[in-house]
Amino acid sequence: MTTLGFVTQPAPPAAAPSLILTLKDPLVLQSGVTLSPVTVAYQTYGTLNAARSNCVLLCHALTMDQYVVGVHPTTGKAGWWDYLVGPGKVIDTERFFVVCANVLGGCMGSTGPKEINPATGKPWGLDFPVITIRDMVASQAKLLDHLGIEKVFSVIGGSMGAMQVMEWAVRYPHRVASAIPVAGSYRHSAQNIAFHEVGRQAIMADPEWAHGNYLEEQRNPKRGLAVARMAAHITYLSETALQNKFGRRLQDREALTYGFDADFQVESYLRHQGYTFVDRFDANSYLYITRAMDYFDLAQENDGVLANAFKGTPVRFCLISFSSDWLFPTEESRAIVRALNAVAANVSFVEVESDKGHDAFLLDEPEFHQTLQGFIDGVAEICGLPARAKEKP
Amino acid sequence: MTTLGFVTQPAPPAAAPSLILTLKDPLVLQSGVTLSPVTVAYQTYGTLNAARSNCVLLCHALTMDQYVVGVHPTTGKAGWWDYLVGPGKVIDTERFFVVCANVLGGCMGSTGPKEINPATGKPWGLDFPVITIRDMVASQAKLLDHLGIEKVFSVIGGSMGAMQVMEWAVRYPHRVASAIPVAGSYRHSAQNIAFHEVGRQAIMADPEWAHGNYLEEQRNPKRGLAVARMAAHITYLSETALQNKFGRRLQDREALTYGFDADFQVESYLRHQGYTFVDRFDANSYLYITRAMDYFDLAQENDGVLANAFKGTPVRFCLISFSSDWLFPTEESRAIVRALNAVAANVSFVEVESDKGHDAFLLDEPEFHQTLQGFIDGVAEICGLPARAKEKP
Repeated sequence: MTTLGFVTQPAPPAAAPSLILTLKDPLVLQSGVTLSPVTVAYQTYGTLNAARSNCVLLCHALTMDQYVVGVHPTTGKAGWWDYLVGPGKVIDTERFFVVCANVLGGCMGSTGPKEINPATGKPWGLDFPVITIRDMVASQAKLLDHLGIEKVFSVIGGSMGAMQVMEWAVRYPHRVASAIPVAGSYRHSAQNIAFHEVGRQAIMADPEWAHGNYLEEQRNPKRGLAVARMAAHITYLSETALQNKFGRRLQDREALTYGFDADFQVESYLRHQGYTFVDRFDANSYLYITRAMDYFDLAQENDGVLANAFKGTPVRFCLISFSSDWLFPTEESRAIVRALNAVAANVSFVEVESDKGHDAFLLDEPEFHQTLQGFIDGVAEICGLPARAKEKP
Repeated sequence: MTTLGFVTQPAPPAAAPSLILTLKDPLVLQSGVTLSPVTVAYQTYGTLNAARSNCVLLCHALTMDQYVVGVHPTTGKAGWWDYLVGPGKVIDTERFFVVCANVLGGCMGSTGPKEINPATGKPWGLDFPVITIRDMVASQAKLLDHLGIEKVFSVIGGSMGAMQVMEWAVRYPHRVASAIPVAGSYRHSAQNIAFHEVGRQAIMADPEWAHGNYLEEQRNPKRGLAVARMAAHITYLSETALQNKFGRRLQDREALTYGFDADFQVESYLRHQGYTFVDRFDANSYLYITRAMDYFDLAQENDGVLANAFKGTPVRFCLISFSSDWLFPTEESRAIVRALNAVAANVSFVEVESDKGHDAFLLDEPEFHQTLQGFIDGVAEICGLPARAKEKP
């Protein structure tokens, strides 16, 4: 397409509307509470093969959703793994049937605190039960049942997505041929719980939060949620990334203003991150999902011995961490690798050199993408899936 | 003293009321604004010798004040350097005349946004001019003039105190025999500006802040200030310290509650840190002092060449950093050392092995204290001050 002499790219396709599954049965949560009805909003990309053996289940991170590729309906930006997922890409939608569901507790169509509580006819708010990573994964397992998929080729996710991947491998080892947790952990650390608690306190400190009833009262705790997002956002980048990206450079000015405007680019960037986030995310969902991450601990539920979670596992694991990730440092992945080694599991592990911090799993990181490609191709061969189409000359 | 068979320590003495100096002349700030009147609230410990050569000037960090030792009048706790300052201690009040002033912009008696603006008869609030580290140091120089001290034996401080120490050495090299910046930097990094900005946004997001007029309106932005403190507090500890101190241990309960109470000790601790802080600190002071730190950059004002700040300096430097400090990492101190080496300055540098993070400069860290002691004794000999009294047998 040529316009006024410029060659323009075709606009990326808009994401299709999400599919919605309403579970037939109530879901008994890890807390013991029974939740009903439960809806799961999801997207699929590619085609399920006749053997139903080419499904890749993607698990999204804290603030993401089922819109993996294509133009996101709320933000108008590309999906969170546009780099990786699509025809001819590493997670090739011409080879694989890719499924991604909004997590339980989320705010993009799956049952969460902003949905209507049938008992009251009002939004759930804080009456929504606290959910866990296990509950998220249980809802995804129901989705796979619905899709007629007994076993996935691979379950893949970064950050909180990696927690779900670990949970999948532990809870349903026979439904997962391979598991790829990226930039994750087997439990949330004290520092990470602390950062989440700051975010929750920021939301709850906002009077517009109204003890969780802001939707009913038609209020909006956007200031609190923006502060929560700003604090979290710092943890997603490395100090080096912040220094390289912004340093002490000033924002649209020649000199300091001796005031509280955003003199520095890094301030302007953070404010932007905070105040755009509130347009696409629900404050109570933020509380519930951060809580689910805090509660996650695969060692604790095995008397502190993580290896016991994996005894006899048939799953092939590939762990990937990033050298400058201080939110989920390499040491966390290494602890999982040690536990897997202790039970002679099939595990590959790569620490990718990157200065981009935790967010590297969402960015153009060739070494990461190559690692993923290599592992996927290897497992595909073992699983009897067709080899990747040759690169076009 | 023996009570009921227990040997009890004598209660630490209460801190003396602060001394107040009102400057004779207005202070022309770095911004060009003229500030008047300017008061400096300060404490002294020990006795000035006849030669007026034994003064140690201490510079406090962001949320501290002039109450270095003794029981703090607001918190009821020991002063911030009780470990280091006192008779027979490293900064020996039997050898040295120790002076510490509340910083300009502070809230413990020195002129700051909560004091009365004589032009309006109301608290300054956001009409208070933005101040800088240079302005803080300028007010301290006036204090030394008032005390008849032309040159200090040493200027010492940690964190923001270290910034003031650097500023002293650069601005008044002939008034400082030695300078000991601990856990500091020559400029605030992008990540640190980002954390400060989160804190400021948390305060400003609180409707009780009332655009800075909360004192006049008899309101109190304590929720916003508490959130700011919580976020900052995480940066003062190392991940290891948080993991060792709290890990994922639960707070006064046997099991998770599946709710948003402080299930984890680390949450309870953070909330406590946040909500006790607001009883002793002024929200606007927090804005102004964090801003002063953000603006600090000794390289920028020397065309990006830090070494130029130190050309021909007669000051003896001792830099100390802590290995697990990620707020002011060792690399920041090393950059200063390199700059000092480039102009053949007299500089000693020690990175203390510690897992306590940035807060190590306030804690019982024997290697830190020994390093300080060694340097002080060496400079004392060169300066012709009496040697330290022998240890009691």
